[in-house]
Amino acid sequence: MPSDETKFLLRENQIPTAWFNVVPSMPTPPSPPLHPGTMQPIGPDDLAPLFPMALIGQEVSTQEWIDIPGPVLDVYRTYRPSPLYRARRLEAYLGTPARIYYKYEGVSPAGSHKPNTAIAQAYYNKAEGVRRLATETGAGQWGSALAMASAFFGLECQVYMVAASYEQKPGRRTMMETWGARVVASPSDETAAGRAILAGDPDSPGSLGIAISEAVEDAAKREDTKYALGSVLNHVLLHQTVIGLEARQQMDLAGDTPDIVIGCVGGGSNFAGLAFPFVPDKTRQGRDLRFLAVEPTACPTLTEGTFEYDFGDTAETTPLIEMYTLGHKFIPPPIHAGGLRYHGDAPALCRLVKDGVIDTVAYPQTKVFEAAVEFARTEGIIPAPESAHAIRAAMDEARACKETGESRAILFGLSGHGLLDLTAYQDYLHGDLIDG
Amino acid sequence: MPSDETKFLLRENQIPTAWFNVVPSMPTPPSPPLHPGTMQPIGPDDLAPLFPMALIGQEVSTQEWIDIPGPVLDVYRTYRPSPLYRARRLEAYLGTPARIYYKYEGVSPAGSHKPNTAIAQAYYNKAEGVRRLATETGAGQWGSALAMASAFFGLECQVYMVAASYEQKPGRRTMMETWGARVVASPSDETAAGRAILAGDPDSPGSLGIAISEAVEDAAKREDTKYALGSVLNHVLLHQTVIGLEARQQMDLAGDTPDIVIGCVGGGSNFAGLAFPFVPDKTRQGRDLRFLAVEPTACPTLTEGTFEYDFGDTAETTPLIEMYTLGHKFIPPPIHAGGLRYHGDAPALCRLVKDGVIDTVAYPQTKVFEAAVEFARTEGIIPAPESAHAIRAAMDEARACKETGESRAILFGLSGHGLLDLTAYQDYLHGDLIDG
Repeated sequence: MPSDETKFLLRENQIPTAWFNVVPSMPTPPSPPLHPGTMQPIGPDDLAPLFPMALIGQEVSTQEWIDIPGPVLDVYRTYRPSPLYRARRLEAYLGTPARIYYKYEGVSPAGSHKPNTAIAQAYYNKAEGVRRLATETGAGQWGSALAMASAFFGLECQVYMVAASYEQKPGRRTMMETWGARVVASPSDETAAGRAILAGDPDSPGSLGIAISEAVEDAAKREDTKYALGSVLNHVLLHQTVIGLEARQQMDLAGDTPDIVIGCVGGGSNFAGLAFPFVPDKTRQGRDLRFLAVEPTACPTLTEGTFEYDFGDTAETTPLIEMYTLGHKFIPPPIHAGGLRYHGDAPALCRLVKDGVIDTVAYPQTKVFEAAVEFARTEGIIPAPESAHAIRAAMDEARACKETGESRAILFGLSGHGLLDLTAYQDYLHGDLIDG
Repeated sequence: MPSDETKFLLRENQIPTAWFNVVPSMPTPPSPPLHPGTMQPIGPDDLAPLFPMALIGQEVSTQEWIDIPGPVLDVYRTYRPSPLYRARRLEAYLGTPARIYYKYEGVSPAGSHKPNTAIAQAYYNKAEGVRRLATETGAGQWGSALAMASAFFGLECQVYMVAASYEQKPGRRTMMETWGARVVASPSDETAAGRAILAGDPDSPGSLGIAISEAVEDAAKREDTKYALGSVLNHVLLHQTVIGLEARQQMDLAGDTPDIVIGCVGGGSNFAGLAFPFVPDKTRQGRDLRFLAVEPTACPTLTEGTFEYDFGDTAETTPLIEMYTLGHKFIPPPIHAGGLRYHGDAPALCRLVKDGVIDTVAYPQTKVFEAAVEFARTEGIIPAPESAHAIRAAMDEARACKETGESRAILFGLSGHGLLDLTAYQDYLHGDLIDG
């Protein structure tokens, strides 16, 4: 019997105390990453220059549950548990018999789900004596999260920010600087990878692949520095499962069970964070549960990519991972959902798509913004353009229920707010937004 | 015995069901507004062209409790109850024996406390058949809130936005348009008041006083339109008391009682919302409770203004109200805390200051931003420049406790986040911020 409340909150002692590892619940485990020199599976020693041992251990773990350290929980308490909403006003607007729920991660000070792993990564690095972190950021969500987490744990933080965003999003840059990070436009002259690009094109707008190459090089060459990545890797997806673990408790509070779980996919950590804790319901218990991964038609990794080993970066310095990929030289058109412009996706997520556990769909951005504005006018929250992909899919599923008369429970992830993306809304409202 | 938790949340059935009217608890009630033509106390008929009767009734009410209508509570549920935090990380950073708490209103979709009254005003207007609302906005917090509330209740919304902000804050403008409002730069050519200013200075940057004149004129001349104000008036302060009423419950959950209550003051609604529900503890029960209203030295209404009758707007069209005022022609320097640039303050708040119930302090903006950055790096949240005035005062009170060794409980209002004010942080971090 569904509750008549609108917002389902947990107390802070209900924050999950362990992360959920999906690997034991997968029909096929993900294939191991390959060393780019030898093409053999990489070992812990290959990753040691880049990551602390605790994270390398998590990257290859097959344990189902991994304890969340106390100092990480202490910081999670600054914004977690995040709320789960019943979208009653949106349901009424659509006139649907569906029950629509969303888990809202925009309550974090950085405005998205990214701090869930940034905080864990900063903690493990600090615990192993690392003094400085290097990372890349595209739209700026991840860089903001790592800058904040670094401030909490007293680490220096260097962010290689894709040059186009560096110019277009000074607000994002200022956020990172407010939390104490050093931000440089990528390609920069601070790395060999950056200088090589600049030599060919001094006005290069940069790309996430280039920025990754720079951050990896920075970390590899400095003794006091490690690298931090905001998506794709197993340990990143693992940390994000606090989202879905909380959502499970909150769906119980709501007296309901999801029939469809929806999330947007850039590298996959947001989708995995919400959906993976529900995967065993389908793969082990055989429940009729639909998972729907939503991406932009401008960067259709899951819907049009090839499932194969590929590099994670442009300069071919990272290990090769098996995933759906558009090719590591692919540069997507400049859509506003900057967080969804990666050429590949998390291997665990890709494997679950390959094995038919997770369905996929792609939308052009005008359809996404149409849904975003309808959502803002009914539910109030102005969503991040990335998250609005999930909103669009949820609304279409709810409209389908209206057609069939089915009363299904739809749960989607609202991974962040759009208050740093208002120029995108301006373009949409004034008719200047073009589909990529 | 203070709780060891960090965040104190209420369930949605703990949202207050009545607003608190401070008037019966005041040593001296506020003097009545005077008609600008007759200089006699105004009656309900004088206000009827501008406000619905329900709000006019609340404006003059001496009842201590006024029920919150169900449809207003339904919308409050989209973001209320708001969290109350214990600032444990800030306390540790300061090394203070003080216990610091803050009530965070930035969780509303508009990012500030303003929707608490915008929703109520939109509801009462809709209930009395009004089709369209006109208002002014300076920095944009109030306009955003009313735009959102108008979307929820199906009202048209016209916002006169101070021209300087209209140009400098396109993000704020886009927020309002996303929620469906029509936004024009003030002075505009849509009103006689606007045209008169433009005739004298076609490049006028505008002011809040001018924008108020335009919105009032718009509402007075159109049958289908009423006016909505975001601060100063009794009914606005009344609606904001949900903040303090929730905070009382949450301080109980925290097992603590505030010794000092702190808030920033622009027109007074944020301060009143948090503080007024605690006033009877002092005025009736004689508790030793300190109230501290914080303002910018650039607009020192309470600390340097004169207590007298003055107009609320520049064009002298509003009733005269008794308040601390810098004069209705006063134009403050362009500080970043745009919400604190009003020449007067709410009469109820001014009377309590006059009667010694509430203390006041003013800070220059560099000291405010210094505190804002320290807060962001310890507590995570990047505060609105307005709210950072309260943070600065709270930190100074906590440092005073360190000197004396006193363990006092400090409660301050964090009225909003600063994610739409990042250019102000950029100026501060790059040394470009000048004290007004």
